[in-house]
Amino acid sequence: MISPLINPQRVWGRLMHLAEIGALSHGGVDRQALTAGEADGWRLVLGWASELGFEPSRDAAGNLFLTLPGEDRSLPPVVAGSHMDTQPTGGKFDGAAGVLTAFEAAQTLAAAGVPRRRDLVVVAWMNEEGCRFAPGMTGSEAFSGSRTLADIRGRTDLAGITMGEELDRLDGEFPEVPLRPLGFPVGVHVELHIEQGPQLEAAGKVIGIVTGMQGKRTYRVTVSGAEGHAGTLAMAERRDALAAFAQLVVALNAEVGGHDPAIKFTIGRVQVEPNAPSVIPAKVTFSIDMRHPDNAVLEKLDGRICALCAAAAPCAVTLEALVNEPSNDFSPALQEAIAASADRHGFPAMPILSFAGHDSRYLARLAPAAMIFIPCRDGISHAESEWAEPAHVAAGAQVLSDVLAGLLAAEHMPNA
Amino acid sequence: MISPLINPQRVWGRLMHLAEIGALSHGGVDRQALTAGEADGWRLVLGWASELGFEPSRDAAGNLFLTLPGEDRSLPPVVAGSHMDTQPTGGKFDGAAGVLTAFEAAQTLAAAGVPRRRDLVVVAWMNEEGCRFAPGMTGSEAFSGSRTLADIRGRTDLAGITMGEELDRLDGEFPEVPLRPLGFPVGVHVELHIEQGPQLEAAGKVIGIVTGMQGKRTYRVTVSGAEGHAGTLAMAERRDALAAFAQLVVALNAEVGGHDPAIKFTIGRVQVEPNAPSVIPAKVTFSIDMRHPDNAVLEKLDGRICALCAAAAPCAVTLEALVNEPSNDFSPALQEAIAASADRHGFPAMPILSFAGHDSRYLARLAPAAMIFIPCRDGISHAESEWAEPAHVAAGAQVLSDVLAGLLAAEHMPNA
Repeated sequence: MISPLINPQRVWGRLMHLAEIGALSHGGVDRQALTAGEADGWRLVLGWASELGFEPSRDAAGNLFLTLPGEDRSLPPVVAGSHMDTQPTGGKFDGAAGVLTAFEAAQTLAAAGVPRRRDLVVVAWMNEEGCRFAPGMTGSEAFSGSRTLADIRGRTDLAGITMGEELDRLDGEFPEVPLRPLGFPVGVHVELHIEQGPQLEAAGKVIGIVTGMQGKRTYRVTVSGAEGHAGTLAMAERRDALAAFAQLVVALNAEVGGHDPAIKFTIGRVQVEPNAPSVIPAKVTFSIDMRHPDNAVLEKLDGRICALCAAAAPCAVTLEALVNEPSNDFSPALQEAIAASADRHGFPAMPILSFAGHDSRYLARLAPAAMIFIPCRDGISHAESEWAEPAHVAAGAQVLSDVLAGLLAAEHMPNA
Repeated sequence: MISPLINPQRVWGRLMHLAEIGALSHGGVDRQALTAGEADGWRLVLGWASELGFEPSRDAAGNLFLTLPGEDRSLPPVVAGSHMDTQPTGGKFDGAAGVLTAFEAAQTLAAAGVPRRRDLVVVAWMNEEGCRFAPGMTGSEAFSGSRTLADIRGRTDLAGITMGEELDRLDGEFPEVPLRPLGFPVGVHVELHIEQGPQLEAAGKVIGIVTGMQGKRTYRVTVSGAEGHAGTLAMAERRDALAAFAQLVVALNAEVGGHDPAIKFTIGRVQVEPNAPSVIPAKVTFSIDMRHPDNAVLEKLDGRICALCAAAAPCAVTLEALVNEPSNDFSPALQEAIAASADRHGFPAMPILSFAGHDSRYLARLAPAAMIFIPCRDGISHAESEWAEPAHVAAGAQVLSDVLAGLLAAEHMPNA
């Protein structure tokens, strides 16, 4: 298939334009989920979509869709995009690059008259970052049925405002954008994102063919002992929660953290009570963050964590599982399509695992999915200094456009 | 020697009277150092002293002295007492019992015409508790030359008021109480105190013959690693401060905390930075509190702590010594005098080590010293529910009176 060429200046210009909304003094952006800034971002993008005749729509979870109609509108659409919300001191590219390269691809394919058997939907998922309203990825979670709308609507920010109130406000602000049902059928989902890590840059590659996303489990662990006076209670009579905690951490780091080179095991948060120098600690609460590309390994290590916690005498240990996001593999056929496009244009490419979570984690539960990574300078993201080279944004947009063109021409969507 | 009998109702009545100053709703007392409440306590005790003709005086560190003159006023006096300040939710007995039993003994001995070769000084040391102005025992520290007056005067409370300001206010409030030089010669120091532990009660004893005070060392330790993303940084590349901390704690608890049955080793306070679930800890700061009756052991274990901290790769560890209070042994001759008095009156007695610190730690550096413990219910102190039985207060006052009578009659003070 002949690939129409995207317009590098146009996609870069739109990225810089969107970055003016919520712009910070050191080059970054503060455009958190469901703020006035994000609504301004919607207006900007809706304006561009309107000029091109894309059909706008949205759903009850605050996801925004811009549809380029295809021949058979009853077929599940090709969906491409990412998110438009940012961290409080975020950058210009995290999320926005995925939405605006998809927009650029749609405009390119429409202008070139590339045939479309089905709709192409450019999407901006709501609240990917989870900084104002925790957790993140609520838009794609609700869309994919991984979390209920009621749950999401009840989440509050630090000011006590619920996501439900802000979603209702969005309703009032965008009455001209029709609502569509949450979780409509999706044919395929493709997301471009900056890598948020140093691997592509270190390898001198421009396109990352994302093979999958590592799974993540988090826990809250509480070690309960007994308070006592540091000067009087004999060592043999103590039930020192901190001493038990330290032994447990050493065992967890050795047996779970040392399992294999692909494991990421972190105890990052610790709270000691009463936390006074002359008082034997009564209680230690701590977090576990465990990630691995293989679900079977995560499941096995979950068992080890349980066993080690159960063995922590003389203190009582309770283990609470908070997050269990399985790993996922992206569609091999879509990985091949990405690789073929990069090869055709001479963009150096490599397979890469996504260590961070993205909306594609949830979309992959509904449909074949793919992610394209482009490098970011020094691997830095979630910071004002976040930066992607214009040439890399253009390369990513080109590969995305090529992959979407192939999908729109195909009779059947690839296998997941 | 014939022992004149103290008046149990009188000493108990004075204890309850003093406890009205700063009384709390659940039976406790809030009469912190250098507050208006403590000044009211001074006024009450000075009134009683004035009725009996005791000579009041004070020094620049806020210590209060009530002197019953002896035959040769040039001889270093017999000094007995404790402190009158309390914890914010303290009890009626911690400190006050020592001052008022000494007062009762002085009144008893004066009334009985027991000969006094030298002065008997009833003392209330300033700021034993150290809760409003840290550290504690500043009055006895300054008196004994263990800490400078300038240091003490510069200490501030949470409101930013310096101890110097409050000491100056005391000057203005008690102009009729003459100042005497800080650190005059002391012949001997005897202090009665509630045990603040459960041993006497558990053994069914009424009098504790305190053999000595365990030494105490405290440290602040900082483990410095490197921050990193929990999802991306390979385990082999991490310098996880929390992991290093846990290994260090296990080693310290085993090698130092497990040294012998007399050691008390506590890590009570821990601060992790940045303390976020998905961030590898960059820094852990923690406290060490180590106590033992034998200075040689403390010195040896200090070396072990240094060695273990130095070996904590791949993180850097800094160790800062904060407190080094050596252990001390009380005068064997005075212990014998206490035992003889208890035996004479049929009070069950036993030798006991003081696990907590007291003003006698500093006075023992100047002169032979002794402490008499009486039981407190369930070992509870520093709490509103602190309680000593009237019969035990009376027994303690009687033993103290007997010991002081013997010292006042003696030509020479005993050996330290």
